[in-house]
Parts: sequence; C-alpha cells; structure tokens
Amino acid sequence: MAYHLLQHDRKGARLLGDAVSHALQTIKHCQRCNTFTELDVCERCASPRRDASLLCVVETPIDMNMMEQTQSFQGLYYVLMGKISPLDGIGPREIGLDRLMSRALDSVVREVILATNFTNEGEATAHYITAMLAAKGVGVTRIARGVPVGGELEYVDSGTLAQALRERKAYGG
Amino acid sequence: MAYHLLQHDRKGARLLGDAVSHALQTIKHCQRCNTFTELDVCERCASPRRDASLLCVVETPIDMNMMEQTQSFQGLYYVLMGKISPLDGIGPREIGLDRLMSRALDSVVREVILATNFTNEGEATAHYITAMLAAKGVGVTRIARGVPVGGELEYVDSGTLAQALRERKAYGG
Repeated sequence: MAYHLLQHDRKGARLLGDAVSHALQTIKHCQRCNTFTELDVCERCASPRRDASLLCVVETPIDMNMMEQTQSFQGLYYVLMGKISPLDGIGPREIGLDRLMSRALDSVVREVILATNFTNEGEATAHYITAMLAAKGVGVTRIARGVPVGGELEYVDSGTLAQALRERKAYGG
Repeated sequence: MAYHLLQHDRKGARLLGDAVSHALQTIKHCQRCNTFTELDVCERCASPRRDASLLCVVETPIDMNMMEQTQSFQGLYYVLMGKISPLDGIGPREIGLDRLMSRALDSVVREVILATNFTNEGEATAHYITAMLAAKGVGVTRIARGVPVGGELEYVDSGTLAQALRERKAYGG
C-alpha cells in the first residue's frame, strides 16, 4: 500500500497521513468503558436507554461491535483492550484490571457478563476477573459454550461437543 | 468409480459387490438403540459398563460416533435414523418416534439427552420428542448451544452470539 501511494497517489497519501494524525490527536479511551471515542464518555455509556445494571466485559472494541450486532444486549460494556497472556508478559496490571474493578463495583452494576474469547488467554482472563470479583456482591456470568446455532454434530469438534454435553440443560420444548 | 472398476479392476468390483450384498444380508438395526449392527442387540447396548439411566438421542449413527469420540459420555443411545422434516413429508411416524417412547419409558432411563442437530429439522425433532415425553417422569435435557471451544467472538455469527448471551450462566472461575 505504501508503494502504491508513493508512486500513484501522493494526494491520497497526504489525506491518509492527515487522517491518522487527526485520529491520534482526537481519539482517546472512554472514561467509563475504555473503548475508543472522541468524547470523554462515549455515547453508549452516556445513553439513558442502556441498562446500567449489566456490564459485559469484552477483549476488544471489535468484540463489542459483535455483541451490539446481535441486537440482544441492552447493558453497558467494559473493553479490556487486551487479555491476560503470561507468555507475552501481559498480566492483570498491564490490562488495567483495577480500572475494571472500580467500574464493576460502582454499586449500580448487578451482573458482570464475561464475554472474553474461549481461547486459553480469554479463559484465563475470565477466571482472573471472577476471582477478583468473588464475594464483592456482584453476580458473575459467562456466555455459553456449545454447539453453534445451525450446527450439525457431524462437523463440530469433539472438545465443543464434550462441553455441550457437560453443559446440557433442562429443556422445555 | 464405476467406470474405473469396470475398466481396470474387475476383481475389485466383484469384491465390492460381494461386500455390499453381505452387508445388506447381515446388517440390521439394533433392537434397543436402532443403530446398524450385525447382532440383535448391539455391543454397546449389551455392555454392563454403560449407564442405562442416560439415553442420548441422536439423528444418525455418525452423530453417535461423534458423541463417542468425546469420550465423555457413558450412557446409552437411541439413533433416530432421521429427523422430522415436514417439507419432505417426514413426520413423527416416519422416523418411528413411538419406538423411542417405549425405549425411553422403560423405567430405567432417568434422563433423555437430546443431541439432535441445531438445524431447523433437528430443533423441530427435539421439540416434538420433548412434548411426547412431557409429564412422563423422565427428565429431558438438551446439549448446550453457544460459542465453540477455542472460539473468538470476532468470528462467531451473530445468532450464535445472541444465543450464548441468552444462555449465559453463573460462573465460578
């Protein structure tokens, strides 16, 4: 892309440079949910229509967008902007879990929904947050693991199937 | 394959033909779980090591093999050999749900685990079986729907994510 811009589109290159500089100057982290925003508190956190008693913890702003696209979540978010990954030297301090703690313990939040990925790092992060929130009077839930919607057993890996079996639930039809 | 056998491997063709004929003559359905077997009652159903109080309902023998590969199920199976599919004219009678009923209500089975696919037909089948078993004193459970093990929110479809959110559960770390 760099070669193309330098060779064929120097005007475009200047626009891109300006846009990146502008973004660097104006975009910061929301003081409440930690996502990218140009405001001190992002529009979502400031909205009176969201249910402030539900706090969904995700790893990245992209994950937050995925949750929003389901159109089935009316609560608020906290974006970790990372995940605990000891192998990369990233611990609870590096991703600022203390900020999440003060956010979650604002006495309005009743339930923290852990929506970190089902990777090793995401699971470790979920475990750590749960341990920090234990006995603080806030409910902690985890989004469900299992067979995807539309999924056929024949094409599901056996780890997922074992988990789906372990986490089976009473069925009302 | 047919052309290849006729042209290059007539001996193989005869072996294949004999094998298919032999299979047709000897392979039948297990009287208990309905899967393919050469015996009246298949080895799995006859095994004293399986937990006869758990009955897992699957659509096909392949699905049963998938469940077995998880190595986390010690109960018995019932193989529907199909699924309810009104558009194809396949209803409860065509897949012999009455046989499943008599199997499930043998007073040894305590829990019927529905492991039909999460497709429209699989869900319809699960609903129908649940309705038939309602108030018969047998617990009915469904394997979990949700985000696959190892899954990242970014790559999961929104229907699955919405479901995972709806079916979130208390998390103990």
